Amino acid sequence: MAKELTSRSENYSQWYNDLVIKADLAEASAVRGCMVIKPYGYAIWEKIQGQLDRMFKETGHVNAYFPLFIPKSFFSKEAEHVEGFAKECAVVTHYRLRNDDQGKGLVVDENAKLEEELIIRPTSETIIWNTYKNWIQSYRDLPILINQWANVVRWEMRTRLFLRTTEFLWQEGHTAHATREEALEETLKMLQVYATFAEEYMALPVIKGVKTESEKFAGAIDTYTIETLMQDGKALQGGTSHFLGQNFARAFDVKFLNREGQLDLVWATSWGVTTRLIGALIMAHSDDNGLILPPKLAPIHVVIVPIHKNEEQLSQISAKAEVLKKELESKGLSVKYDGRDTHKPGWKFAEYELKGVPVRLAIGPRDLENNTVEVARRDTLEKMIVPADTVGTYIPELLANIQENIFRRASGFREKNTHRVNTWDEFREVAEVKGGFAYAHWDGTSETEAKIKEETKATIRCIPLDNEPEEGKCIYSGKPSKQRVLFAVAY
Amino acid sequence: MAKELTSRSENYSQWYNDLVIKADLAEASAVRGCMVIKPYGYAIWEKIQGQLDRMFKETGHVNAYFPLFIPKSFFSKEAEHVEGFAKECAVVTHYRLRNDDQGKGLVVDENAKLEEELIIRPTSETIIWNTYKNWIQSYRDLPILINQWANVVRWEMRTRLFLRTTEFLWQEGHTAHATREEALEETLKMLQVYATFAEEYMALPVIKGVKTESEKFAGAIDTYTIETLMQDGKALQGGTSHFLGQNFARAFDVKFLNREGQLDLVWATSWGVTTRLIGALIMAHSDDNGLILPPKLAPIHVVIVPIHKNEEQLSQISAKAEVLKKELESKGLSVKYDGRDTHKPGWKFAEYELKGVPVRLAIGPRDLENNTVEVARRDTLEKMIVPADTVGTYIPELLANIQENIFRRASGFREKNTHRVNTWDEFREVAEVKGGFAYAHWDGTSETEAKIKEETKATIRCIPLDNEPEEGKCIYSGKPSKQRVLFAVAY
Repeated sequence: MAKELTSRSENYSQWYNDLVIKADLAEASAVRGCMVIKPYGYAIWEKIQGQLDRMFKETGHVNAYFPLFIPKSFFSKEAEHVEGFAKECAVVTHYRLRNDDQGKGLVVDENAKLEEELIIRPTSETIIWNTYKNWIQSYRDLPILINQWANVVRWEMRTRLFLRTTEFLWQEGHTAHATREEALEETLKMLQVYATFAEEYMALPVIKGVKTESEKFAGAIDTYTIETLMQDGKALQGGTSHFLGQNFARAFDVKFLNREGQLDLVWATSWGVTTRLIGALIMAHSDDNGLILPPKLAPIHVVIVPIHKNEEQLSQISAKAEVLKKELESKGLSVKYDGRDTHKPGWKFAEYELKGVPVRLAIGPRDLENNTVEVARRDTLEKMIVPADTVGTYIPELLANIQENIFRRASGFREKNTHRVNTWDEFREVAEVKGGFAYAHWDGTSETEAKIKEETKATIRCIPLDNEPEEGKCIYSGKPSKQRVLFAVAY
Repeated sequence: MAKELTSRSENYSQWYNDLVIKADLAEASAVRGCMVIKPYGYAIWEKIQGQLDRMFKETGHVNAYFPLFIPKSFFSKEAEHVEGFAKECAVVTHYRLRNDDQGKGLVVDENAKLEEELIIRPTSETIIWNTYKNWIQSYRDLPILINQWANVVRWEMRTRLFLRTTEFLWQEGHTAHATREEALEETLKMLQVYATFAEEYMALPVIKGVKTESEKFAGAIDTYTIETLMQDGKALQGGTSHFLGQNFARAFDVKFLNREGQLDLVWATSWGVTTRLIGALIMAHSDDNGLILPPKLAPIHVVIVPIHKNEEQLSQISAKAEVLKKELESKGLSVKYDGRDTHKPGWKFAEYELKGVPVRLAIGPRDLENNTVEVARRDTLEKMIVPADTVGTYIPELLANIQENIFRRASGFREKNTHRVNTWDEFREVAEVKGGFAYAHWDGTSETEAKIKEETKATIRCIPLDNEPEEGKCIYSGKPSKQRVLFAVAY
């Protein structure tokens, strides 16, 4: 196989980079920290987008589009928000280039300096709440349930394809409500949408929880999160849903006449997931042969490869393949027939394993004779000989089975790598050697949280929503604690 | 009606602005020249996107995503390209803000100045061809047929909602080919995709043609265009498809080994349409009561309004409406039932006329008795009483009929406003008084073209592809001409 990957055990991080490049998902661009999402990677994003968009619309949301640029002054209005984002902002200062008189080529035209600098949106709360101000007068104008699909920019110093890039694609929901209860309900509803999407589509089990003060979104009252575990034992935050309280309404003076006829500040939420999900998808399921994609998000469900010795065989097999292709397509599946004679079957097998196509059908001369096909499933690499006439029912069932199996495997992995730890030594062993999730007691202070992070790199991923109260002692300070929280070293 | 529009005859330009605002399509944002696309306007864009995306994929294209930022140096590589775009570029010069020591608030951090400025993409040829360089070695790597859905920024001085905004949404196709013929074929194929989309979905007749030297895209060999006519007699360019020759391959040194084993420069095309299409849609069809949307692009096909005197009637009508709604939805239609008792039927009628919903059903007590509904079509404002049991077949036919009627009406309008002019006086009358398209002889020089523009504001929209050769004399210079070209004052 020409495109061999580094193995996970040898170097997990290198395996990931190799895989992203060799499976043609994305590559670094000429612009520092920005990636090019290649067609195969973008096709996965389209699948993610399509499904999430349906789920957003089913829960009553509509899409809209707000400007890329945010005036600098907007940024300063919410104190914590600006604190959180000011240090990683791309700033537009000029609106024209000109040819230099002294032959230095193209230079910024100093006569075209903006009076007020514009920030490329790192997130859109400020520009959106400045807009909502004009849309909301009375409780009759509420709720506003808007989502935006967009690009955003955060000037990251260390970037990695999909996981952390300067520009990335995402969706950001921004909702406005008349009451605290309603906003809180929305925050949790969208957290559940993300959890359902992660588990049912990405085949990725999640832990739902709330972030600590130091890990929450800049400007939020509370940040809710879905936390996932990757194969190297590190955690990855899959999506967040923020209860913003009245913070942005206060900053942008967005008041409404409530049912009691009194002026009140509007309640807000925001929630988002990004192209980072593709990174999670790769790292959670794939193996040393390449990608393993859950069928529900795979751009191609089935690839058909002919195995032939001569032209005549190829033309017979092609005819058969076309019939099967049509039949599977009529069931809503995406099917590719790779009849190229420039590449050998073995090369093609490796290629589609690398690309994570869930099911491969191979048809050779003996299959024609016996009216069979060879079916290979990507998740387990198992092969079966199946009567050709049953393919139309067999494959959809197999795909459902693969989807389920991938989820079960990821769940089993997470279970095996989730530890209840009671001492500092145990904790360090998980953080520094074993990897995985650690449920541990914590004294509830940001100081302790910071020290634990400093010493072990582990952070509190969340305080799980389904936590049972439990008396205990903080693994670091020994102070009393009322519940365990979820720690891990995270991406 | 609370939301009265300025009439078209009174002030067409004001009518357009009123309509965009009052139909809730878009509004100006706090950022100069940038708009907020509101949910109803964005829903039209989603319809446009959805259909075009299907057509692009049917013609073999795939989507991908390239960076928002373009290094300044890339820009200088194609001489005409930089000339065309340098004067309207948003430039990122810094990547951090900080709090000022002297209490001036948030300021640009001068320690975070970029070594090389980044341009916000006004179009992506340069960053894409710099990327293609690494993707193309041999003819086997060709063609590359990629499209991108993205936002772009061109620093316009005079902006108008949808028609011309600093940031806008678009798609940009960028293809790479082994031969001139193939690239030219692609250019024309995509022009035809745009023409088909405009005529069959937007109900907008187009003239296909090629731009003159002075009107073509900066960096293209030839720019092909679809030109449409608005109700005020001004032309609007609906989409362009560029044959780029080897210009960008030369600028970015993109060579490939051809079938003959020789190194050759790659051939290129690019093609795009933007959110401007929404402006065209509005201006081509709508009337003094509001929007008229072609059913194929309408976010809501049918609205059902109950007419009732009391609660009991309302509940009976609602039950009936729900049955009709389900039936129509089962035919793939988007149906809204507006049972709000906060607004009177008359108010609702005006509201949905304003928003261009193609069909309105009203159900009153008498309709319940007779098992009928009142059907109103938005395009002609005609009303009919229809047996409720036939709605499931009647409405889909009516929608097809409306789609056809709108196209026929726009075609009739264009025909009436297309003039073959032979003298300068006749030409001026069309350009300055009558409006519309003028087919006129032109001597083929950029000088004459510029002078005509200076004196009348009319420009050559295109040299139509279906032009018949015809001997004549230039309406301006009197010099000999071999064909008529299409003139108009344009948006």
